[in-house]
Amino acid sequence: MAKTRVGIVNVTGYVGAELARILLRHPAVEIVSATGRSEAGKNVGSVFPHLAPVDLIIQHELGDVDLAFSALPHRASAAAVLPLLKKGVRVIDTSADFRLKDATEYQRWYEHAHPDPEALSAAAYGLPELHRQEIQAARLVANPGCYPTCTILGLAPALKNGLIEGHIVVDSKSGVSGAGRTLKLESHFSEVNENLGAYSLRGHRHLPEILQELNGVSAKRPVSLTFVPHLIPMTRGMLSSCYATLKPGKTETEVKALYADFYRDEPFVKIVDRPPQTKHTLGSNLCLIYPTVDTRTGTLVVLSCLDNLVKGAAGQAVQNMNLMLGIPESTGIDMLPLYP
Amino acid sequence: MAKTRVGIVNVTGYVGAELARILLRHPAVEIVSATGRSEAGKNVGSVFPHLAPVDLIIQHELGDVDLAFSALPHRASAAAVLPLLKKGVRVIDTSADFRLKDATEYQRWYEHAHPDPEALSAAAYGLPELHRQEIQAARLVANPGCYPTCTILGLAPALKNGLIEGHIVVDSKSGVSGAGRTLKLESHFSEVNENLGAYSLRGHRHLPEILQELNGVSAKRPVSLTFVPHLIPMTRGMLSSCYATLKPGKTETEVKALYADFYRDEPFVKIVDRPPQTKHTLGSNLCLIYPTVDTRTGTLVVLSCLDNLVKGAAGQAVQNMNLMLGIPESTGIDMLPLYP
Amino acid sequence: MAKTRVGIVNVTGYVGAELARILLRHPAVEIVSATGRSEAGKNVGSVFPHLAPVDLIIQHELGDVDLAFSALPHRASAAAVLPLLKKGVRVIDTSADFRLKDATEYQRWYEHAHPDPEALSAAAYGLPELHRQEIQAARLVANPGCYPTCTILGLAPALKNGLIEGHIVVDSKSGVSGAGRTLKLESHFSEVNENLGAYSLRGHRHLPEILQELNGVSAKRPVSLTFVPHLIPMTRGMLSSCYATLKPGKTETEVKALYADFYRDEPFVKIVDRPPQTKHTLGSNLCLIYPTVDTRTGTLVVLSCLDNLVKGAAGQAVQNMNLMLGIPESTGIDMLPLYP
Amino acid sequence: MAKTRVGIVNVTGYVGAELARILLRHPAVEIVSATGRSEAGKNVGSVFPHLAPVDLIIQHELGDVDLAFSALPHRASAAAVLPLLKKGVRVIDTSADFRLKDATEYQRWYEHAHPDPEALSAAAYGLPELHRQEIQAARLVANPGCYPTCTILGLAPALKNGLIEGHIVVDSKSGVSGAGRTLKLESHFSEVNENLGAYSLRGHRHLPEILQELNGVSAKRPVSLTFVPHLIPMTRGMLSSCYATLKPGKTETEVKALYADFYRDEPFVKIVDRPPQTKHTLGSNLCLIYPTVDTRTGTLVVLSCLDNLVKGAAGQAVQNMNLMLGIPESTGIDMLPLYP
Repeated sequence: MAKTRVGIVNVTGYVGAELARILLRHPAVEIVSATGRSEAGKNVGSVFPHLAPVDLIIQHELGDVDLAFSALPHRASAAAVLPLLKKGVRVIDTSADFRLKDATEYQRWYEHAHPDPEALSAAAYGLPELHRQEIQAARLVANPGCYPTCTILGLAPALKNGLIEGHIVVDSKSGVSGAGRTLKLESHFSEVNENLGAYSLRGHRHLPEILQELNGVSAKRPVSLTFVPHLIPMTRGMLSSCYATLKPGKTETEVKALYADFYRDEPFVKIVDRPPQTKHTLGSNLCLIYPTVDTRTGTLVVLSCLDNLVKGAAGQAVQNMNLMLGIPESTGIDMLPLYP
Repeated sequence: MAKTRVGIVNVTGYVGAELARILLRHPAVEIVSATGRSEAGKNVGSVFPHLAPVDLIIQHELGDVDLAFSALPHRASAAAVLPLLKKGVRVIDTSADFRLKDATEYQRWYEHAHPDPEALSAAAYGLPELHRQEIQAARLVANPGCYPTCTILGLAPALKNGLIEGHIVVDSKSGVSGAGRTLKLESHFSEVNENLGAYSLRGHRHLPEILQELNGVSAKRPVSLTFVPHLIPMTRGMLSSCYATLKPGKTETEVKALYADFYRDEPFVKIVDRPPQTKHTLGSNLCLIYPTVDTRTGTLVVLSCLDNLVKGAAGQAVQNMNLMLGIPESTGIDMLPLYP
Repeated sequence: MAKTRVGIVNVTGYVGAELARILLRHPAVEIVSATGRSEAGKNVGSVFPHLAPVDLIIQHELGDVDLAFSALPHRASAAAVLPLLKKGVRVIDTSADFRLKDATEYQRWYEHAHPDPEALSAAAYGLPELHRQEIQAARLVANPGCYPTCTILGLAPALKNGLIEGHIVVDSKSGVSGAGRTLKLESHFSEVNENLGAYSLRGHRHLPEILQELNGVSAKRPVSLTFVPHLIPMTRGMLSSCYATLKPGKTETEVKALYADFYRDEPFVKIVDRPPQTKHTLGSNLCLIYPTVDTRTGTLVVLSCLDNLVKGAAGQAVQNMNLMLGIPESTGIDMLPLYP
Repeated sequence: MAKTRVGIVNVTGYVGAELARILLRHPAVEIVSATGRSEAGKNVGSVFPHLAPVDLIIQHELGDVDLAFSALPHRASAAAVLPLLKKGVRVIDTSADFRLKDATEYQRWYEHAHPDPEALSAAAYGLPELHRQEIQAARLVANPGCYPTCTILGLAPALKNGLIEGHIVVDSKSGVSGAGRTLKLESHFSEVNENLGAYSLRGHRHLPEILQELNGVSAKRPVSLTFVPHLIPMTRGMLSSCYATLKPGKTETEVKALYADFYRDEPFVKIVDRPPQTKHTLGSNLCLIYPTVDTRTGTLVVLSCLDNLVKGAAGQAVQNMNLMLGIPESTGIDMLPLYP
């Protein structure tokens, strides 16, 4: 069977490199083109020693492909993606440019007008657990952010089933690779190592995505939610600790049963029976969820964790690709977590 | 002036060793005796190379001292402390044995009857910012746990001033040294490094302390609070992220002013104007607090951080000692944080 | 085609768990039995969340298998392996029990008499790059230690080709997982993290292995070598920095050509053109080698690195299994390194 | 007694900030001026939260001071230091600009002509253990690099006493803060964390300093030495592992006695009786040295470790200042190491 010819726009960031790593071992595709902003002209395998087998010169413009991944930052990504779509290439965009359905919201959070508001409504939000059918048919998939993937998966069963009421607190923690490969003091080793802090207290750009999707799934809306991200001294891994008042009369047993039911046939979301650790997902496409109840105060606590570069980015993008190609959803992404 | 003769019960754990490190450079005291459970007969300076100048043989029983610190675990600590008190020695206990005023609560959380309930009421809870006068006069000071110090200091101004209403969520994060020097899989390097998770979801033993003190200071009670601790891959450092609904009509400006006022004359609690990082407290006795408001949802968010072994344990114990001895409160504990 | 039925003796250590992880995705085998010392009776997938798909109860004794891996410590391993051999099971032993050909040397370094000196000569030393043919035919393969694999691969081309003379210094650095899952103060997070030191200055047990194999390959013998291991605050990864006087007249160009030639057809040993980093091998079965010359002093410097749990243990064991089974050597172990 | 008025040129790097931290608690000096390249106009205490008590606006030019520290990079440092000297200010330069006595060597390694070769001979090399008297009288002290301090102190006793012969191998390991606060991919958290590698294989700029000083102290010269630095995933700490052939007839007992004798009265260099760990020096001005003999091969192995930002930079600079001011050498730098 002929392999699908795929390309990666901006292979030189962490998400782009992770896409290359996964796609290189994927049995149904062939990476035929890759672009980069700073390293054009060099071989992928010389820029990234772990990708030594990738014999591909980094280009300024993507060559001829059947399907493209964009791993550019927002704004630059839309500029690269829109022409590809016009040429008939199916695209999975890992940036934020096509995640929000509402162009006004986009402008509010990203501080410039969206270049093509119509594309927003045509794009599928690439969270297979909520939008599998749309993704299968989509020309453009907006791959979710890492915090949204982790948080939405953690809260969707509770909201859909009306298990909670009132305000929700989401305290998220992320490894540093989530901040990307671009140099900044916040990612400088001696600043981050042996350190811990919250950031984006005035509002993180992943918040509107979380609200959009939770409002979409919730039995009651609008959803009210405070989201505070924290930076953790580790490379990969993300945990969202979610808190909300359990609706009176609901029990932990009921909660656990509804969560298990919600994800019963999902290949990558697992309800676990003890608090999950990010290391249990390292390098895998898994999202582990642990719902529990603080019975003393009637509070639902949901812990949700994943590898921010896999299920939180590149792995989920390949999961979406598998859906778009109509091949088994786990193809090429059934890696077991690396432990210890 | 004659130096106060102090002793350390169980110098061989992390809190005991940190006490020795601080007291060794303290101008008003002399460490004259130290005990240990496993290393008795050895010199402190050979067990701990960083304490090489401490020329003191570890004993089974504490020698003659004016004031003693106990760094034993709970239960063992009470057994060591009670006889010392009877001999007239003033004691600062860093264990949990005398922190809870209610012996029933103690039994509930520590699963054995308290050996001397009367001592509970006589003990001062060693948080100087709330109990300075009691501490000055006390024969026995119960040094608070690290999570309680961090959390109570973060929430006391809000509760005292009636700034919040409804349920409080405290999502705390701690470095691994908080779990002590005793070997366990949860502190094994390859398990903890590059990993992150919540624990004690069924209730952490620091919770009743937090509630006792917050109820003591709150304008309205009882305080309702969910507390979830997380383990972070770093050695020292603690952050409590606290969330509650801001009382309608209150503003961030008002909140910040009341927090600043509450700690105006405190030598070790600082209200900061951007989100604090644990590294800004490393090795120091500081607690940094950042109160802010998620105006979108009317939620008060307070970030409070400290070094769990200093302000969260040994440094605060020495601060209490200074108060008990009637010497300037900052004596010997005005170290600047180590950065980076 | 029927899958080979394999078993893992002591699946509960890091090497055992890594074997399970790799074998579970190996297309030619099926894990049918696993033993453990402390966790017998539990399911592998509940002891190790990252192995959740492994539905296998941990036994005291290995069941019926075609081929067994032993991941027990030395001494215990021989006791488990010898009966298996007698039953006709082919065995790959990851302990040190069958690595040394000389029973006297074994006794000297491991401080007890070897239980079956004859088995020593029958065992193949499982370094495919040096002993591929013996391994293919062997009933018992002694899988090399991590330091020996890293160091022997780094020095073999130089010694075989007579590139160096005089004494060799090997300064090795290892991640903490090499010390195993057994609790000890040396692997306690707060002791190891942000720390660095040398150990086993009186002689590490991996030294006789290194000497045995280098003497076997060297153009001149005996080889004189100082080996000093260091513990590095990271979980996985190993680097051997090797130093020796370059034979007069030899050039760096010549050195690099001979190294490239030595490993020309090897699937897992790569000569790289800049100093390798352990992260470039993480989770893969690769060994990266960089030979260079300090021309100012005529010193050959060879840097050799790998993942201590993969090429340094479990991955190499599976490579040996592939050879024993006569299937392509890279089957199931062609994972790309995880980066970042 | 009036305090000495000191200034810090470039307070905004790690060495500059560490100087400020130490000097702020130094009883004999007052920081009256500080410059910075990027943060001029801001308050030191707002740029560095750990220096909150430092109420000093960062200037472009240093104000009037009695003694100045320069923490600029080489070249820029000489440009700042020479005018200060002309104004009669005594200077301690932590850059490499005045360390090498030979201007030709300077040009060779730093690739530009030295701006004032005469100043080179007037400068004292600021390693108190070798040059105490010169330092006391100097107008300009060239504070040694971190690798040189660690390595020279480790090897000086052996070379002075003729304990070794032939080539020396120095395998050094450093925490990442040694690479400074300037952003670069080599210090990017996700690149360095959980990683390990050698660098500067073509010659590190600290090598000529090491050779200059060891040739100065050695009984036989020239000293032949290979120096290979490695980057370790930790913030602070440095270890040099030094290897050389022990002169026949010399014993370990003799070696240890001569080392102990060499540093008998030194306040900051300690000969230890087991392999030292960098954590035993964290935040202190100590250098710990462990000389031992690999008796199997007659090789002297010396392990030497320190905190690269303290004894390897700012702490040693203050030690030099104390000597220049004629006050007790340990004043303000007798901090105990932070453990764990």
